[in-house]
Amino acid sequence: MNRIIKIVVVGLGQVGNYLYNELKIKAKDIESKTGKKIKIVAISAKSKNKKRKFKIDKKIFYSDPLKTITEKNPDIVFEVIGQSDGISKRIVEKALKNKIHVITPNKALIAKHGNYLAKIAEENNVNLEFEASVAGGIPILRTIKESLASNKISKIYGILNGTTNYILSEMENSNQNFSEVLKKAQNLGYAEPINPKLDLNGSDAFAKVRILSALGFKSKISKAKCLMEGIEKIELKDIKIANQLGLRIKLLGISEIKNNHLFETVHPCLVSKKSYIGNVNGVMNAVITEGKPVGESILQGEGAGPGPTSSALLSDLISILCGDVKNPLGVSVSKLRSLKQYNINNYVNSLYLRFEVKDKPGVLSEITNRLAKYNISVKRIIQTPDKKNNKATIVIITHKTSELNCKNCLSIFKNHKNILKKPTLIRLLN
Amino acid sequence: MNRIIKIVVVGLGQVGNYLYNELKIKAKDIESKTGKKIKIVAISAKSKNKKRKFKIDKKIFYSDPLKTITEKNPDIVFEVIGQSDGISKRIVEKALKNKIHVITPNKALIAKHGNYLAKIAEENNVNLEFEASVAGGIPILRTIKESLASNKISKIYGILNGTTNYILSEMENSNQNFSEVLKKAQNLGYAEPINPKLDLNGSDAFAKVRILSALGFKSKISKAKCLMEGIEKIELKDIKIANQLGLRIKLLGISEIKNNHLFETVHPCLVSKKSYIGNVNGVMNAVITEGKPVGESILQGEGAGPGPTSSALLSDLISILCGDVKNPLGVSVSKLRSLKQYNINNYVNSLYLRFEVKDKPGVLSEITNRLAKYNISVKRIIQTPDKKNNKATIVIITHKTSELNCKNCLSIFKNHKNILKKPTLIRLLN
Repeated sequence: MNRIIKIVVVGLGQVGNYLYNELKIKAKDIESKTGKKIKIVAISAKSKNKKRKFKIDKKIFYSDPLKTITEKNPDIVFEVIGQSDGISKRIVEKALKNKIHVITPNKALIAKHGNYLAKIAEENNVNLEFEASVAGGIPILRTIKESLASNKISKIYGILNGTTNYILSEMENSNQNFSEVLKKAQNLGYAEPINPKLDLNGSDAFAKVRILSALGFKSKISKAKCLMEGIEKIELKDIKIANQLGLRIKLLGISEIKNNHLFETVHPCLVSKKSYIGNVNGVMNAVITEGKPVGESILQGEGAGPGPTSSALLSDLISILCGDVKNPLGVSVSKLRSLKQYNINNYVNSLYLRFEVKDKPGVLSEITNRLAKYNISVKRIIQTPDKKNNKATIVIITHKTSELNCKNCLSIFKNHKNILKKPTLIRLLN
Repeated sequence: MNRIIKIVVVGLGQVGNYLYNELKIKAKDIESKTGKKIKIVAISAKSKNKKRKFKIDKKIFYSDPLKTITEKNPDIVFEVIGQSDGISKRIVEKALKNKIHVITPNKALIAKHGNYLAKIAEENNVNLEFEASVAGGIPILRTIKESLASNKISKIYGILNGTTNYILSEMENSNQNFSEVLKKAQNLGYAEPINPKLDLNGSDAFAKVRILSALGFKSKISKAKCLMEGIEKIELKDIKIANQLGLRIKLLGISEIKNNHLFETVHPCLVSKKSYIGNVNGVMNAVITEGKPVGESILQGEGAGPGPTSSALLSDLISILCGDVKNPLGVSVSKLRSLKQYNINNYVNSLYLRFEVKDKPGVLSEITNRLAKYNISVKRIIQTPDKKNNKATIVIITHKTSELNCKNCLSIFKNHKNILKKPTLIRLLN
């Protein structure tokens, strides 16, 4: 690399704009740390004249991001657009093939095309860095790739999405229902204003799980379908009942090796209020890694927002400027294992089941009989009558049972005359 | 470096012996990761024939560790003896001067001679790595040096000693007093069997604070005296009272920049039972870093023991084998700042004060009058009589006050006829 490092920033949304400003402010710091002068030679975004928090230099603005590569021949490209395909993929592909390093916080892109893009990076002997793609300011990827390099990692799990964690915490704190709190989250900038779906339905967390699995287990980024549930169906009622039981609801991403098979999932979990993970609240993220010989490691920090994301992007930049060319996925793509998918039907958990029923004699025993038929044994029952409406809420905590039993059993309750709606199911953390 | 990397392990205690075994087991893994074959060419310890958990190869045993360098000309030396001076210092010095990389978990050595040794390493263009010296398996040093490289860090604090954290947790859990629990800790291998003083009095944690400050604030490792208190005076009584108040006692190490001055301390702290740090129990360590723009980051994991320590030692090894020569203290020693020490008299905290008094009228008002005289205002008082012995326990939680006021005020109570022993003081975490 030459002493003056030419940088391109593609995407000037919240993160891109903040990053642009940080690169300006920190240029001197970065030079004293790495001996390299950085210079932003081009920026690109949809709109040149959009109102932005930090001023940009319009003289170096390009509407076509691909032109920044052909015309400016940069050393490093920041891709901060965030699409899983389309222009994000094209710009990263083109940069790598032109022997240009790429830094990105784009988890959707890496989760979908990471194997392919890492291979191109390796072939061209450049870096593809994406520390910011998982858990923002938490340096979990570098920790797995470097600090835990000699460990055999068996499980990685945690709270990987700040939006949903904020919503669940705030429902409990403010006693407001899902849609009210979602609005609040949107106003505060914690949830996407137009389409918050990818956060809420678990997709965002799932992309992060995929990336963590690959690095932790030294395996290809998986493409298999797996269990993914979001928080859209969690009601304030569930949060209150959980509270009475000493539990709290958290959306967890879990990646684990079970009998040599890869098990990846994202779903709401009931965890103890006294547990560590039960006390990671608000927009915080936390990742727990189990490895040998290191034992259990926990990393916690702000999971999103332009500040933490920029911190991770700049750590990638400094690493590149220090001259380390590394395999994007820790080891060469050709050496990554292809793990078979664990059969989700064998996933075993205690369950929280909430039934809304007509307040009639015999309904409870009908439910418990059904459960017994599918070998689901009951640990605890709480029945709360709603006399006025002639209804009742029945919450059942089961002993451990498999997904298969549970799925078969619950399907029967779908069209039951005394059961007023599909039962709510939340798994308890093992 | 040649393709076969010659390794020396000096010190074969619990950690050294475990490391020796791990190096044997993981040699293949390390080769596939780094392309380098490692070979242990010499080992050294006090006794050749001591009974060890893992078998060692006696053919490569040296009683004089210095000879391993002159006779075997290794590429990398692991110093796992652990003295702050003496042979530990001599072997590290000699290795670095002979352009041999050094890896060590020796916090006492680095805290005392880190500036000097880092300079020698730099001059000889070799690595001096000590990730394992702070918080065992938690990759806090690499995180500060690399992942948070672009951040301005203002504070680093946490639970840095597993022995004391285990003792405090276990006193609460088992309702046993300090000396009983210490014995238990010694039996379990959590406390040194012969001389546990360095853990108990805060020295061990303080060495770690020194190292964290240097890396976090890009400053020389300080030599100034500062406030250091251990847990030897914590009684079961204090733990029980804290419990009633919704608090828990933790030995915290704190490093902070206050008005451009360096503030380093280790002392017991009362923290909320609901707080994160209040729930880090047993032998766990946790480090909290406050930086801009990343916000608050938390790293938690097992802080000691041969497993986590070896994990950190091997991560250093892999980093060296990947060919990165890095400044041991993050930036060149010549560029490190020399920070002035913060005046401890200005340290401001709410205080927990426990007085054991004769149960006589007027004693409480005598105490509160004294406190008022030194501008220490009272937030809460709990007086518990012990009628049988004609005594009483008075616990006072004060509003915030300075160390100076507090020191002056408490000295008066020393020889007071109605006050039966020196009051116990525990600071509340700000």
